Amino acid sequence: MVQILQLADYQIVIGDFWQNFKGFLNQKNYTKIFVLVDENTETHCFERVKEHFPQDNTQLIRTHSGELEKNLATCQVIWKALFDGGANRNALFVNLGGGVIGDMGGFCASTFKRGIDFIQMPTTLLSMVDSSIGGKLGIDFYQVKNSIGVFANPKRVFISTDFLTTLSPREIKSGFAEIIKHALIQDGAQWHKLLIINDLATVNWNEYLIPSLKIKQRIVEIDPFEKGLRKALNFGHTIGHAVESMALETDNPLTHGEAIAIGMICEAYLSKTCLPEGKILRGMPDSDLQAITQFILKHYGKYDIQSFDRQRLIALMMQDKKNETAAINFSLLNKIGDVEVNCTANVELIEESLEYYLGL
Amino acid sequence: MVQILQLADYQIVIGDFWQNFKGFLNQKNYTKIFVLVDENTETHCFERVKEHFPQDNTQLIRTHSGELEKNLATCQVIWKALFDGGANRNALFVNLGGGVIGDMGGFCASTFKRGIDFIQMPTTLLSMVDSSIGGKLGIDFYQVKNSIGVFANPKRVFISTDFLTTLSPREIKSGFAEIIKHALIQDGAQWHKLLIINDLATVNWNEYLIPSLKIKQRIVEIDPFEKGLRKALNFGHTIGHAVESMALETDNPLTHGEAIAIGMICEAYLSKTCLPEGKILRGMPDSDLQAITQFILKHYGKYDIQSFDRQRLIALMMQDKKNETAAINFSLLNKIGDVEVNCTANVELIEESLEYYLGL
Repeated sequence: MVQILQLADYQIVIGDFWQNFKGFLNQKNYTKIFVLVDENTETHCFERVKEHFPQDNTQLIRTHSGELEKNLATCQVIWKALFDGGANRNALFVNLGGGVIGDMGGFCASTFKRGIDFIQMPTTLLSMVDSSIGGKLGIDFYQVKNSIGVFANPKRVFISTDFLTTLSPREIKSGFAEIIKHALIQDGAQWHKLLIINDLATVNWNEYLIPSLKIKQRIVEIDPFEKGLRKALNFGHTIGHAVESMALETDNPLTHGEAIAIGMICEAYLSKTCLPEGKILRGMPDSDLQAITQFILKHYGKYDIQSFDRQRLIALMMQDKKNETAAINFSLLNKIGDVEVNCTANVELIEESLEYYLGL
Repeated sequence: MVQILQLADYQIVIGDFWQNFKGFLNQKNYTKIFVLVDENTETHCFERVKEHFPQDNTQLIRTHSGELEKNLATCQVIWKALFDGGANRNALFVNLGGGVIGDMGGFCASTFKRGIDFIQMPTTLLSMVDSSIGGKLGIDFYQVKNSIGVFANPKRVFISTDFLTTLSPREIKSGFAEIIKHALIQDGAQWHKLLIINDLATVNWNEYLIPSLKIKQRIVEIDPFEKGLRKALNFGHTIGHAVESMALETDNPLTHGEAIAIGMICEAYLSKTCLPEGKILRGMPDSDLQAITQFILKHYGKYDIQSFDRQRLIALMMQDKKNETAAINFSLLNKIGDVEVNCTANVELIEESLEYYLGL
């Protein structure tokens, strides 16, 4: 049984999708299939499903796992593997893995010979909920996350929550942060459904995936190139990305979701506090700030970011792609389920929000 | 006075375009302007026109001239310069130069923060006639020309033939090859207009540019992503690109146009000789082959490619982006002004066409 979410120019197929995948391959008649994996997804995912790929016509491209590998050096390895494997423009590129594989593999496919078809087979909760929609592809460069890339859509996305059984609790939490974010920015009812979750290990993720994907779909289809509304998805990410970048340089890097969880608490604080000039932001109620803080702390606990250099954090935020001017751009909440894009906060308020987190 | 060629999603402004450029800048309100130049276009072009750029808000990004610089290492220099210069998504990227600048700068702009606006100001005849339309951007990688890149259109193209006065006769010839190609594939009348040209130094290029651009426009707008008809533009390029790649490794690299001139003679020979199965190619008349050969030799002379390794030349053709299968794909002529895409030739015939050129 599969469920299909029809987007403007491709489908997301959720469930036991292999029959659908077979039909897709038969219809497209690709000359060769390249499957990008890392050491984890090769062992835990590809080995389990390889019988569904044409034996004589599938080639693995191996990378190492981890955000630190999401760079131009790895792209060069991938592009060379495509050349050496004889890839032409009618080859198919399959991203079997999490966000790093999906973002980087999609970027490599979109730029190889100016673009070959690719599909996403996300294997983490984060990539299922976050990278399946939106066409954002790319790599980290010059210590800035996702700073080089393109917008391009896959030909299809295949999601099986079976893959989630291979994940650690920490990886599940990483994806859960985006599910929380989607509810907070657009769907108060979904937020209340989330509040009843006590143990992430026992959740049936199929129930939460489709509502969460639909929230993202609505936003992205209105604003595919992030000119306006799409920035709503940036809630928690301005501070979260900066925290994630800094944590990457330490011995204890944070997962994306862990960093975004911190970012959401700080930006919830800003939502309550910020009243930027000319904006209709009304100031989120304190009760919402408390609810958000408590729910996130319940699932994520508190991280030690005391040692992070504040000035460098702020500088990283200034480099964020969403900044149109010198001011730092935020998407903040009027209340839970109601987001406001293009808010700005000054450095003092941002530091205050970090103090709020540290003081919890 | 300017002439405007209106394409599907942008304009080409030809002539004394600075008033139009000023209006464009005023309308768009960019936060900052980055101008990509090499040492030649900085001296001979930017210095002549810099008064038209906002003094306080324009930053040069300098590269070195030459095809060998069109690589990922230079892209990294450009991307870093954008970061260091504080470029955000509302910055404008200006490519002031020839094809290398336009292709590489356009690629860098299209991938910086997943894409910022860019405009083309071509300064060579080749880039005016070839890169102004089609959206093909990219760099050379793994010794394959233009093998990494994207399709993306500039916001506007500004062409002034004033820049051509700074070019060497060899550079003029390089662009002239594409003008010949456009006539050969689509416009027998334009071919006859070309035949009267005896001295390239005295040509009024404005007369030839717009008809040539319109031929390319017709083809590209029908087939923007090179799925079919657009391959027509590949006439002369399957062999020409391979020759160009090999020449790059010698002490006497050929210009693009010089390589394509060789490629057009060889592929004109194939056009006469090839009768691939199932194709409607009728075999170009020998008189057309003679006319093409004579006209190209008159303007280009003959190049010594005797020493080029045949097997490696063929291998380079196999890597060409247009190959959908193992066979080598050509766009050949039924007659002058009438092209046929998706022709194939076997290795023996290709070698025969090289012998034809060497025997001239």
